[in-house]
Amino acid sequence: MAAPDAPPRLGIGMVGYAFMGVAHSQAWRTAPRFFDLPLHPDMAVVAGRHADAVRAAADRLGWRDTETDWKALVARDDVDLVDVCTPGDTHAEIAVASLEAGKHVLCEKPLANSVAEAEAMVRAAEAARSSGALAMVGFTYRRVPAIQLARRLVQEGRIGTVRHVRAQYLQDWIADPQAPLSWRLDKQKAGSGALGDIGAHVVDLAQFVTGEHLTGVSALLETFVRERPLADAFSGLSGTGAAGGATGPVTVDDAAVFLARLSGGGLATFEATRFAYGRKNAIRLEVNGSAGSLAFDFEDMNVLHYFDARQDAWEAGFRRIVVTEPEHAYVGAWWPAGHGLGYEHAFTHQAVDLVRDVAAHHQPEPSFADGLQVQRVLDAVERSAADRSTWTDIPAPATSEDLR
Amino acid sequence: MAAPDAPPRLGIGMVGYAFMGVAHSQAWRTAPRFFDLPLHPDMAVVAGRHADAVRAAADRLGWRDTETDWKALVARDDVDLVDVCTPGDTHAEIAVASLEAGKHVLCEKPLANSVAEAEAMVRAAEAARSSGALAMVGFTYRRVPAIQLARRLVQEGRIGTVRHVRAQYLQDWIADPQAPLSWRLDKQKAGSGALGDIGAHVVDLAQFVTGEHLTGVSALLETFVRERPLADAFSGLSGTGAAGGATGPVTVDDAAVFLARLSGGGLATFEATRFAYGRKNAIRLEVNGSAGSLAFDFEDMNVLHYFDARQDAWEAGFRRIVVTEPEHAYVGAWWPAGHGLGYEHAFTHQAVDLVRDVAAHHQPEPSFADGLQVQRVLDAVERSAADRSTWTDIPAPATSEDLR
Amino acid sequence: MAAPDAPPRLGIGMVGYAFMGVAHSQAWRTAPRFFDLPLHPDMAVVAGRHADAVRAAADRLGWRDTETDWKALVARDDVDLVDVCTPGDTHAEIAVASLEAGKHVLCEKPLANSVAEAEAMVRAAEAARSSGALAMVGFTYRRVPAIQLARRLVQEGRIGTVRHVRAQYLQDWIADPQAPLSWRLDKQKAGSGALGDIGAHVVDLAQFVTGEHLTGVSALLETFVRERPLADAFSGLSGTGAAGGATGPVTVDDAAVFLARLSGGGLATFEATRFAYGRKNAIRLEVNGSAGSLAFDFEDMNVLHYFDARQDAWEAGFRRIVVTEPEHAYVGAWWPAGHGLGYEHAFTHQAVDLVRDVAAHHQPEPSFADGLQVQRVLDAVERSAADRSTWTDIPAPATSEDLR
Amino acid sequence: MAAPDAPPRLGIGMVGYAFMGVAHSQAWRTAPRFFDLPLHPDMAVVAGRHADAVRAAADRLGWRDTETDWKALVARDDVDLVDVCTPGDTHAEIAVASLEAGKHVLCEKPLANSVAEAEAMVRAAEAARSSGALAMVGFTYRRVPAIQLARRLVQEGRIGTVRHVRAQYLQDWIADPQAPLSWRLDKQKAGSGALGDIGAHVVDLAQFVTGEHLTGVSALLETFVRERPLADAFSGLSGTGAAGGATGPVTVDDAAVFLARLSGGGLATFEATRFAYGRKNAIRLEVNGSAGSLAFDFEDMNVLHYFDARQDAWEAGFRRIVVTEPEHAYVGAWWPAGHGLGYEHAFTHQAVDLVRDVAAHHQPEPSFADGLQVQRVLDAVERSAADRSTWTDIPAPATSEDLR
Repeated sequence: MAAPDAPPRLGIGMVGYAFMGVAHSQAWRTAPRFFDLPLHPDMAVVAGRHADAVRAAADRLGWRDTETDWKALVARDDVDLVDVCTPGDTHAEIAVASLEAGKHVLCEKPLANSVAEAEAMVRAAEAARSSGALAMVGFTYRRVPAIQLARRLVQEGRIGTVRHVRAQYLQDWIADPQAPLSWRLDKQKAGSGALGDIGAHVVDLAQFVTGEHLTGVSALLETFVRERPLADAFSGLSGTGAAGGATGPVTVDDAAVFLARLSGGGLATFEATRFAYGRKNAIRLEVNGSAGSLAFDFEDMNVLHYFDARQDAWEAGFRRIVVTEPEHAYVGAWWPAGHGLGYEHAFTHQAVDLVRDVAAHHQPEPSFADGLQVQRVLDAVERSAADRSTWTDIPAPATSEDLR
Repeated sequence: MAAPDAPPRLGIGMVGYAFMGVAHSQAWRTAPRFFDLPLHPDMAVVAGRHADAVRAAADRLGWRDTETDWKALVARDDVDLVDVCTPGDTHAEIAVASLEAGKHVLCEKPLANSVAEAEAMVRAAEAARSSGALAMVGFTYRRVPAIQLARRLVQEGRIGTVRHVRAQYLQDWIADPQAPLSWRLDKQKAGSGALGDIGAHVVDLAQFVTGEHLTGVSALLETFVRERPLADAFSGLSGTGAAGGATGPVTVDDAAVFLARLSGGGLATFEATRFAYGRKNAIRLEVNGSAGSLAFDFEDMNVLHYFDARQDAWEAGFRRIVVTEPEHAYVGAWWPAGHGLGYEHAFTHQAVDLVRDVAAHHQPEPSFADGLQVQRVLDAVERSAADRSTWTDIPAPATSEDLR
Repeated sequence: MAAPDAPPRLGIGMVGYAFMGVAHSQAWRTAPRFFDLPLHPDMAVVAGRHADAVRAAADRLGWRDTETDWKALVARDDVDLVDVCTPGDTHAEIAVASLEAGKHVLCEKPLANSVAEAEAMVRAAEAARSSGALAMVGFTYRRVPAIQLARRLVQEGRIGTVRHVRAQYLQDWIADPQAPLSWRLDKQKAGSGALGDIGAHVVDLAQFVTGEHLTGVSALLETFVRERPLADAFSGLSGTGAAGGATGPVTVDDAAVFLARLSGGGLATFEATRFAYGRKNAIRLEVNGSAGSLAFDFEDMNVLHYFDARQDAWEAGFRRIVVTEPEHAYVGAWWPAGHGLGYEHAFTHQAVDLVRDVAAHHQPEPSFADGLQVQRVLDAVERSAADRSTWTDIPAPATSEDLR
Repeated sequence: MAAPDAPPRLGIGMVGYAFMGVAHSQAWRTAPRFFDLPLHPDMAVVAGRHADAVRAAADRLGWRDTETDWKALVARDDVDLVDVCTPGDTHAEIAVASLEAGKHVLCEKPLANSVAEAEAMVRAAEAARSSGALAMVGFTYRRVPAIQLARRLVQEGRIGTVRHVRAQYLQDWIADPQAPLSWRLDKQKAGSGALGDIGAHVVDLAQFVTGEHLTGVSALLETFVRERPLADAFSGLSGTGAAGGATGPVTVDDAAVFLARLSGGGLATFEATRFAYGRKNAIRLEVNGSAGSLAFDFEDMNVLHYFDARQDAWEAGFRRIVVTEPEHAYVGAWWPAGHGLGYEHAFTHQAVDLVRDVAAHHQPEPSFADGLQVQRVLDAVERSAADRSTWTDIPAPATSEDLR
């Protein structure tokens, strides 16, 4: 790749190497193999607390060097972009420090564990932009081709005025009360439960696809299982959390349901749960407008359903669009029509778009301000749920002025 | 049918002969042809205000005689059971008078246009029961075989503790702002809009299938189109409601969305709308419990999806049960396996069950008290929507004592 | 119904009252309740061999009178139309006698058990037509609204030149080797097995929808289970066909698969089987043409899938048309949009069309000649299967001249 | 990766870098990032005829070195395994030379363009095996996790004796007569059309999943469009192949349909076509057995449908298994449950299995003998189609003895 006409390098430093780190690594590695990029992502360094473990991860995932302190990573000259793949409680500190060091930042979602942190991050991003550093939050599902098509249909007026949004993110990985505690069930680390982990995704998707934002919510939160086996104790026993096994408290929500208003006047229902047996990663989004309807389910991720209300009644129907044509966003770089993509491809698309925006000195989307807007929705949900589901307004999306 | 061993007759008098009257007529006519009944429903008389129209309806639908005053129908000796198929504003008066006259009553849903009316009807039903007259409300969808199977799976413990209910009733027949006003958009006649007309069905289904009741709600109501062409003016013109065409106000909700709690602690989301383009009569019900899940969509009405959480992960999946086996409720009386039923069959099943209960002097279900419970949910929805979606408790289901 | 302007009566005499007799009775009873008919079908008389049984059936199904000899039924003055619902070995004799007696005839499919019989029936129908008697064969599935829509799309050129037909009729009711012998497994009575019973339906549907006929076939037939418990012995025991239970030979095919050419040059594959576990009545028809595609599955009978190749690639997709709009064939007479029909409705549609054709002195479709064409396909399938699957031509459809 | 405990390298040389070359490159690159491998695949060299083009491909796809003569690639010391990604007419020469040079071989499907070539390749593979070189043919779809699950269910007896296979591979990329000629439509290069390109896949899948082989066929082939615009002329014009544009003959089949017998006595229907508008890459496989059924469609590639005939009728149904659990083949190495895989993952699985087999000196599957068996099926199809669809036997699968 060092040919005379090879693109300049963009040094990547990744903090964290668990689930998200693996997905991001695959994206950085794959993006230049399928897409023409103006900069070549150079997988320079990965940071983690334990030297041996991070070295093993670097070998496995393809990072050249390692650090055991994320601050050292941020300080390196060969790092142009810091990719934050840690739990939410550390996002603000790492992202702000990186931006202040003049690095571009890609930060996993949710942006932060609180509105205050998110606001600080937006301020840091605003400040850094003037110095050329750009910040993006990783609402990756936006870059599933079928979601891009949904957005395009709305933008082209094919759905008309949005009347209804129905958004659900359904999983079942802790429906069994014997599933052990993990950091995702610890409020300190994760900020919230299903709400922030998966609810954040459907809030962002609903706003992205409709091009509107939520103006208020009425909500319920619930924790169905309040004590769980400790992961260590659990794994040390016979896998049943039998008598004698220590347990710990679940401090986050297991499920969140809420009603919302869209800025265009439509109604929305949201649901995020980890207790929907049989639904593994069902991200469902339906939109009904004055000119048509859309339906998406991540269980069939290469497909978008579209109803065009201009059709004559006798031949009208939801169209099952297999979103694998060269005309669809990102798809032309991959395989022939019908050869569907998988979960991880959206991460590659995210890397592609970010690299192109960095090269073009263009603000990537979703921005930290977009992430803050989602954070404010999550916050309003928590406040409504704590106050008899009373309607709770959400401030309009932040502008530069608001945040200075 | 007058053979020596022919069953005794049960004289039926039906009030109203529009959509519901047609469906009920088909049910009374068909029930004895496919099911063994202890009493033979005799389609004695139908009542309507206009003599010619009701005579034509009687001929078309197969009723022997006609009345232009429902009170005359109620007074007839050849009427044992009054079947109330009129708009909601007349339910209470007709049903109470019929019960007081010692007639059995089948009353279309929603039971009434207000809680007060519904309470009066329950009192009348309680009083009549001691004299042998029985009352039933027509939440017909309970008698779709797939819904019966859903109920059975819950009753057998196959779903476990209910965690989530997702209930939607989606239509699109007034999504076009030029669709004319009808009595269903007039609060005086209809009581409410999507909420009472179709929302009532999914409230009843959710309670029926889970065996639980709703204890509180948080709600939003919306009327998207507040003025519509008058039906007469509309039809008199070129079908476009062009300039000069008179319009009238829509006085009911176009859509209702609400959160709810189930008496067992689970969370529920409800949605009823007539603005979901492309969804014609999509009654969707999903239930997630601690032992399994269920999913139903009336667009595929002969099918129930069931997930059994006891399955091993490698072979687990939602089972698509085609509910057309002789072992399924009602189905054995019809066709061989796989030869699906349609919308109207549930009305026949309703007639069958009611006739059998009448013969057995057994309280039919859903009772007027069940109808009142739904009415109270609808009422709480309206109050919550009027009060910033604040959580609004629903009284526990009425018992005999409550109502005296 | 005896009002001054009531339509004249059309006396119906039905022979046989098993599965098909029940379906036909429901159709004759229901047709005038939902459709405007020029003649009123009068359910005059049903014939069966056993006096008590036929009397009970008449009471149950709503026939006024009974006969124990079909010849007596044919001879009655109050019978204008003979409805033949018996097994295939008696079709020819009853239908020919009825036509010779000047009666209209509706004959269940397959038209006959042999080409020779079918030819004789066509000759009788041709002869009777000059005297005013009309004949129709009961390929009822043609009158499912979604199939009508498929036909319309082809006729309007929306599919273009047909390239491929994929037709399957899948059941599983004898997949269990312990399922007992029935007359449908007896070549003497039934003529053939899956081939004639269900294969005939998909041959007719493929020809009807495409408007083409099959010109040749290459085929395989198979009988997987060659001995089965006798029905009597079987039912007399514990339901397991245990040791000592008598068995009898299966003399028909369990499954038929064949390739075919359409008269327009397209390729077709056909499959009919009673051994497809989990498929109860899956009639599947797919058509691919030079301008679009169609897909139908009777397991979702109110739906047709249509792909329009003129769409732009980025928004192209199979359209799921819910065939319940007033604009769809037959549907306007029933329920509002989305309130789907069931299996039996096609029988009502068949009765409606036949009554209208009789009143208009118009040849109903499918005619006996259409039935003969299907019979010739079945015959060619059997001959090909008996001759190493060698390509076997099918004569062009019979015209009046051919048969004199 | 050069850590002391890094696995030894396995030098890969790839011939060809078009569609298949891109997919194989992604596989070699990705396999060691997600799977523990005993040998590290070293992407040493890629060969292509044009120096500049192959250099650009190497940079893009991640190959260290290039050759313009495949023989030079085969001769290199740093190549342990030759990966043949060229059109079918060159497979035999390259594969045989590679094996004779002691290299392992992965050869794309179909194995060859004729049975004679395939036999020679099997002989070469047999000979090479004694010297330690192993050969595999790339029927990649075997390694889709849902197909692995199908195979497992059959092996565990859950389907019982196979009665029916229904196999289709439907595409539409040349349904438009103006789609240009490509090497895939040239018999010299491609050997056959839909038959060998996509029909070969479903033949292999049917045999793999059932564990049986085809014993005979009856077939039809068709070329619907016999002249097409030349690709060059076509692309040079306005994209419409307008008047004056040169055309060339299509010398392969556009579609193939055939009946078959399985070695266990079951019946099968096969269809491969590029003329099924709206179906982009629909690989469909259904199996009905004496104990259950399976259904797969690559349009929903992470799902397998399974019907268990042991279920009680009232709760029986096809189970929709989302094949994304850690317990499913290959899946545990990727993402959490529900985060589906895409088309290319099967290539990674293929690389993983091949590397493991090479390290273990174990014959990989599918072997060249498996490829020959498919070739014999394709050959029998062509002979049957040329001889009035007459039944054409297929020799039993080759054993070592047969081929010496």
